[in-house]
Amino acid sequence: MHFSPRELIERVPKHDLRAAARLITQIENNEPSAREVLGALYRAAGRARIIGVTGSPGAGKSTLVDQLAADLNAAGKKAAIIAVDPTSPFTGGAVLGDRIRMARSESAEGIFIRSMATRGSLGGLARATNDAVCELDAAGFDVVLVETVGVGQAEVDVVRTAETIVVVLVPGMGDSVQAIKAGILEIADVFAVNKADRPGADLVQKDLRILLTLTEPEEGSWKPPIVATIATSGEGCAELADEISRHGAWLRDSKSAHDRKLRVMEETIISLAREELYDRVEAKSRKDVEKMARQCLARKLDPYSAAEKLISKQ
Amino acid sequence: MHFSPRELIERVPKHDLRAAARLITQIENNEPSAREVLGALYRAAGRARIIGVTGSPGAGKSTLVDQLAADLNAAGKKAAIIAVDPTSPFTGGAVLGDRIRMARSESAEGIFIRSMATRGSLGGLARATNDAVCELDAAGFDVVLVETVGVGQAEVDVVRTAETIVVVLVPGMGDSVQAIKAGILEIADVFAVNKADRPGADLVQKDLRILLTLTEPEEGSWKPPIVATIATSGEGCAELADEISRHGAWLRDSKSAHDRKLRVMEETIISLAREELYDRVEAKSRKDVEKMARQCLARKLDPYSAAEKLISKQ
Repeated sequence: MHFSPRELIERVPKHDLRAAARLITQIENNEPSAREVLGALYRAAGRARIIGVTGSPGAGKSTLVDQLAADLNAAGKKAAIIAVDPTSPFTGGAVLGDRIRMARSESAEGIFIRSMATRGSLGGLARATNDAVCELDAAGFDVVLVETVGVGQAEVDVVRTAETIVVVLVPGMGDSVQAIKAGILEIADVFAVNKADRPGADLVQKDLRILLTLTEPEEGSWKPPIVATIATSGEGCAELADEISRHGAWLRDSKSAHDRKLRVMEETIISLAREELYDRVEAKSRKDVEKMARQCLARKLDPYSAAEKLISKQ
Repeated sequence: MHFSPRELIERVPKHDLRAAARLITQIENNEPSAREVLGALYRAAGRARIIGVTGSPGAGKSTLVDQLAADLNAAGKKAAIIAVDPTSPFTGGAVLGDRIRMARSESAEGIFIRSMATRGSLGGLARATNDAVCELDAAGFDVVLVETVGVGQAEVDVVRTAETIVVVLVPGMGDSVQAIKAGILEIADVFAVNKADRPGADLVQKDLRILLTLTEPEEGSWKPPIVATIATSGEGCAELADEISRHGAWLRDSKSAHDRKLRVMEETIISLAREELYDRVEAKSRKDVEKMARQCLARKLDPYSAAEKLISKQ
């Protein structure tokens, strides 16, 4: 079914989930009309709680997120899940992607879940996710959970606009130094040590505590709590939800939280401008780029000078 | 010690490693003069073999890369290692980063190793790495090994300009479906199943083989071999090096490899242009951006319109 931009602007805020799903597809495909719709929806948004969940592949994030959403639903809140999949940059589509995405836990039944991928650039995935969050916010969801696979910088970018970021760790996935290496210590508002019934779970928690004291948070800043969970049985999920709420309450009163929000918004604007500029450069200069790339490969030109030429043509 | 751009252009191609290290620092800091130097060095580059190594945190990539470099050195080839660390986007520096980076294996003694991080954007890290590769190529290294932590799209971007990409997997880090999810199946030219003495190593190899048959490579395309390694003892490393060489030989004769090279170069030019445009937008409009971000947070403006305003000011 096709919806015009006007119809989307009208239907999405009425919690029309078919219109909402259609708009997310437009966002993924980077359709120009999506921007217009999002611009209109933006002012209606701003009420939902946005929670990001990240962690290593295999940490049990999907099950944990499903559980959180199910508990929220049971408490009468409308929860939506966006599951972000990094996509192969060469073929533009994850192998077996759709089949894998269907395999969610039973607890997620009746919950709005949407997988996202993008054919475009790295920044594109983060932007598309933020756009989808904004849309689901405008659609009247009380909570939007953004789940992303992996602990690299791309994943960090995907969740960074979330108000509360949950980092999921599990025992036996490499030592905690790896967690620092990946930079996740600094973005976490709440740690969940999942599969807490496995050997080594205590050690992960202990290591985390030591590492957290090493970073010496500033006066008045948030000290990330550590919650042990077993997502498959639901154990610890209520406590995790409590800590997420506690962080939400802290955010409302915190000066530094407001500063962070402002900084994230600045970056959002800049990256939107950047994507737009990029699209223009690319659309105008496809042929020039190919020609210059051939010259570069023949070492008759260097890519830095080629980029300069491209810009000066704008 | 300070080197002028002219001195760098003169010294780096003479394999002056202090000058080379200094230029990498300038690249990390995104200093404008680095571009000028790189533009000049680019035409001298193009002789080195560029090998990317990626995989989950804790897969033993560092040890494997050290071993490969040590073997190359023993065979009379000059090898350099660039170890790419995703950096936290919020504080602009990995906690304990320098201390961790020193902990390399003994086999790496006497080898040029450089850690890289960046304060900037996602794309910035990939670009800085490519710049450093170009520089070390011009500096006369025969082989440049780029090692990156993680299996997300940021890491993929870091290694995608490599000619040969080695993906390191280990038993017990989550099933192979996770590997597909992260999109690594499609970028791998060679698979190393490391820690092959651990239980489950056979299973990882078997799963990989099944998954590789599912993707049905096109006629004449490269079929990624799977090599079992134990990086700590050096077992399988010679075989891994052979497969990397075999891929290099295949690349020289392959039409599709040439197409990929051209596509990567096109993307390099576009992303350089994009970064440059981005820097210009940001430099000119810092104050405007803050003002507009405040309006957006108050829902008096939406970020899409804000981005449009920013561009129209260019």
